[in-house]
Amino acid sequence: MSETVDYPALVLKRGEDTRLRAGHLWVFSNEVDVQRTPLTGFEPGQACAILDSRDKPIGVGYVNPHSLICARLVSRGLEHALDRSLFVHRLNIALSLRERLYEAPYYRLVFGEADGLPGLTIDRFGDVLVAQTTTAGMERLKEPITEAAIKVLKPAALWWKNDASIRELEGLPAYADLGYGEASLPLRVREGGLEFAVDPIGGQKTGWFYDQQANRDQLARFVKGKRVLDVCSYLGAWGLRAAALGASEVVCVDASASAVEAIEANTERNGLADKVKAVRADAFDHLRALREARERFDVVILDPPAFVKRRKDLAEGRQAYRRLNELGMQVLAKDGILVTCSCSYHMPRSLLLEGVQHGARHLERQAQVLVQLQQAPDHPIHPAIPETDYLKGFLLRVVPA
Amino acid sequence: MSETVDYPALVLKRGEDTRLRAGHLWVFSNEVDVQRTPLTGFEPGQACAILDSRDKPIGVGYVNPHSLICARLVSRGLEHALDRSLFVHRLNIALSLRERLYEAPYYRLVFGEADGLPGLTIDRFGDVLVAQTTTAGMERLKEPITEAAIKVLKPAALWWKNDASIRELEGLPAYADLGYGEASLPLRVREGGLEFAVDPIGGQKTGWFYDQQANRDQLARFVKGKRVLDVCSYLGAWGLRAAALGASEVVCVDASASAVEAIEANTERNGLADKVKAVRADAFDHLRALREARERFDVVILDPPAFVKRRKDLAEGRQAYRRLNELGMQVLAKDGILVTCSCSYHMPRSLLLEGVQHGARHLERQAQVLVQLQQAPDHPIHPAIPETDYLKGFLLRVVPA
Repeated sequence: MSETVDYPALVLKRGEDTRLRAGHLWVFSNEVDVQRTPLTGFEPGQACAILDSRDKPIGVGYVNPHSLICARLVSRGLEHALDRSLFVHRLNIALSLRERLYEAPYYRLVFGEADGLPGLTIDRFGDVLVAQTTTAGMERLKEPITEAAIKVLKPAALWWKNDASIRELEGLPAYADLGYGEASLPLRVREGGLEFAVDPIGGQKTGWFYDQQANRDQLARFVKGKRVLDVCSYLGAWGLRAAALGASEVVCVDASASAVEAIEANTERNGLADKVKAVRADAFDHLRALREARERFDVVILDPPAFVKRRKDLAEGRQAYRRLNELGMQVLAKDGILVTCSCSYHMPRSLLLEGVQHGARHLERQAQVLVQLQQAPDHPIHPAIPETDYLKGFLLRVVPA
Repeated sequence: MSETVDYPALVLKRGEDTRLRAGHLWVFSNEVDVQRTPLTGFEPGQACAILDSRDKPIGVGYVNPHSLICARLVSRGLEHALDRSLFVHRLNIALSLRERLYEAPYYRLVFGEADGLPGLTIDRFGDVLVAQTTTAGMERLKEPITEAAIKVLKPAALWWKNDASIRELEGLPAYADLGYGEASLPLRVREGGLEFAVDPIGGQKTGWFYDQQANRDQLARFVKGKRVLDVCSYLGAWGLRAAALGASEVVCVDASASAVEAIEANTERNGLADKVKAVRADAFDHLRALREARERFDVVILDPPAFVKRRKDLAEGRQAYRRLNELGMQVLAKDGILVTCSCSYHMPRSLLLEGVQHGARHLERQAQVLVQLQQAPDHPIHPAIPETDYLKGFLLRVVPA
């Protein structure tokens, strides 16, 4: 028999192993047999052996007694400790997929649960890694993660961008620091033949939205010679891609002064300054102003931050998506292309489309969905964990009804 | 005031206009005020003016008193008759989208409701059109449709492939004939640099599955140097595309002798005979045989005919999808790519994935969804009509758990 780990047991109640055996990786606190294994007996982030009610092993994971998701399964069976060797194995599997998908090393390398590493995200910017932990369990494992990343990828540097708001649920502090190596900021990211400067420390999320890369590729068929509006542009990824793909004129709108500066710098860097204009403004306000000025765009891109961060925000967030999309269609040319996205897991795909349809009818226009947008393949979906399928969108043609 | 059509009125019950005003195009028989406008007063396919309970016009459509969907809305307002001029307008709008999307004239030109022409499908094979009507209303309009198609497209020929089983619901006979012009069969279709011979009369549907074209394009990243199995291959579109994209070896499996002959002819025609083998066999039987023989493929493609043709077939069809996918994974290499599809509207995307996940766990493997497959953009989705969103699939990576 192979050796097994020597971790304290976390025993589930009867029947509560079913979801895990079907592939899920999360244990909720009401599923634990706290008589036999009180959660209070664990430190936040402590490794454990997850057992069913008959003491049959499910696998190795980690606990957080203070979180609703009180444990996550990392490895099935009890053979593999949560150590450098396991991370090396998982990183190699994750890397081999990305190397098949991409020609250059700019992608999400690890997407948490879907890559068998719940609570860990790693983005790759050439030879610099930007990592994020969102659970106490992964936070405790930063050292073996770093060691494994060095072994597998030989990076020049690894940054920790540990300021996601979900870390609060795990009682973790917000911080960002250099975990390994040396790197001067900003970093560089390459996409579609362009180069962008990215600040993983001051910027949003881990600095760059790789999840939209495949969706931005879709612009190729629709922007040649066209006038494009990119709303909530952040660093200008959509807008600059549109310009590089042949748009005649691009207007990027973002509420942040630093984003507008970054768009301008990225525009200069890529020789697109004659085509791209960046405007600092609130998305809703600026769309209204464009509407009043009777401006029209052939392609309107709406890629706002999540309006529905928590389930209870759905009613309100849904209205915000509806308003934004209706405004977007009001500045769209007669036969125009609308690209609309939501990165809110709690906003269902069907409701986003319903909002678009409602706006279209209100404006007496007819929409046709040409492409259902989705997160890029370096953000794989775990088939048993719906939460890993969060990015949705539509590329629509909007014509007079 | 503009002139209005002189069609008999079809009056809806109170409140039954809501769905139509929100964008839908169907009227169900229980929504009609049959006291005021008895359905028995209409001939199958007769044109009508659809009015709400207060006699306010919704639009122009056509009736079939014998069908559950007793009327379909073709045009909003009462200005446009169901004549050549309306079809010319609609065909021009449909054509301008496809000309933006495709470099060569091989695509679905009209996709029913989503192109504002409920009950009509037109596929384009270069200068030959293959059309299909699925409602009595469109069947009666074959003449103006043909005239409009001649005006807009100047085709060499137009075939009617009117043998879809849903025509029975409308009391229409099954037939296929040449509606206009001259054309020698088989037709030619070009996709991905390949040329296929297509028989729209003897073949499935309108002869070619344009709806999968964008999904087949996805193979490019995954098949180079790989061994590929294409199950339910019909004319070999998936398999030959894989071979042309660099697969080292391709096995196509289809139950039909004529399909196997066609695959062989298409393989010869494209100079791929050294790489592609066609096998005549039942999909399930052959997968079992391959499993017994311990054959392994790097990429397995499962694109079966609809297993859930009617809602009541769901329980049984779901099992069939599950079995097929589990068999597919049993002949998949250790780190393999599974492409799995369903063209059954009544089979939800979530259930297809659930079946894959069930099979994966059963085989102690872990699946990652890389791409959610969907119908190509020449099959646009009508946002208010869920039935227009019928093709679903997944491109997954399957690794040891």
